[in-house]
Amino acid sequence: MAEDCLFCKIFRKEIDAKEVYRDDEIVAFEDIRPVAPTHVLIIPKAHIPSVHELTDDHAAMLAGMIRVANRIADERKIDREGYRLVLNKGPQAGQSVYHLHLHLLGGRGMGWPPG
Amino acid sequence: MAEDCLFCKIFRKEIDAKEVYRDDEIVAFEDIRPVAPTHVLIIPKAHIPSVHELTDDHAAMLAGMIRVANRIADERKIDREGYRLVLNKGPQAGQSVYHLHLHLLGGRGMGWPPG
Repeated sequence: MAEDCLFCKIFRKEIDAKEVYRDDEIVAFEDIRPVAPTHVLIIPKAHIPSVHELTDDHAAMLAGMIRVANRIADERKIDREGYRLVLNKGPQAGQSVYHLHLHLLGGRGMGWPPG
Repeated sequence: MAEDCLFCKIFRKEIDAKEVYRDDEIVAFEDIRPVAPTHVLIIPKAHIPSVHELTDDHAAMLAGMIRVANRIADERKIDREGYRLVLNKGPQAGQSVYHLHLHLLGGRGMGWPPG
């Protein structure tokens, strides 16, 4: 956990977020600037700056994040029409918070290219 | 393996692709319609239709796909400026081949929203 990290604070409930899922290792919450009818961020408890720092040791955590994304897609019934999962690393990708977060986007047609 | 799947055929080398990485479980190759200076697809050997079918049993495979993406980003020296990883599920997300594939995009600024 990092003291000043926005997403660590959300995990510790020091900052409010519209949570849609929580367990001991993963929290999911509504993006505060949604760009689709469903736009949820899925974060691990572990303060990992980005996808670039992931190793094989994080395999179970990563699978857990995907499991939560799929579960939310099912709950919102966007599993058939479809959804997009996005991980941004670094400034050119527009990563805004340096705590790993998976974007789940759906509920509308998603254009191509993806940004 | 699925007989008629385009990406299974690439894995089996029955169709040519500009491969950038190969091991026994994962192949990465240039997207034939690149939308960024780096646009690589990373696929597992296993014929899994989409991210929606992933379970915790696929954790090691998933971590392997991320490892390969990070390695290619490092090789192309886009790790600092950044890159975007995208998984599309279903028609609204524009999934075109129903064999799980991770898009690695980089080498330019990536806009927001991601499609």
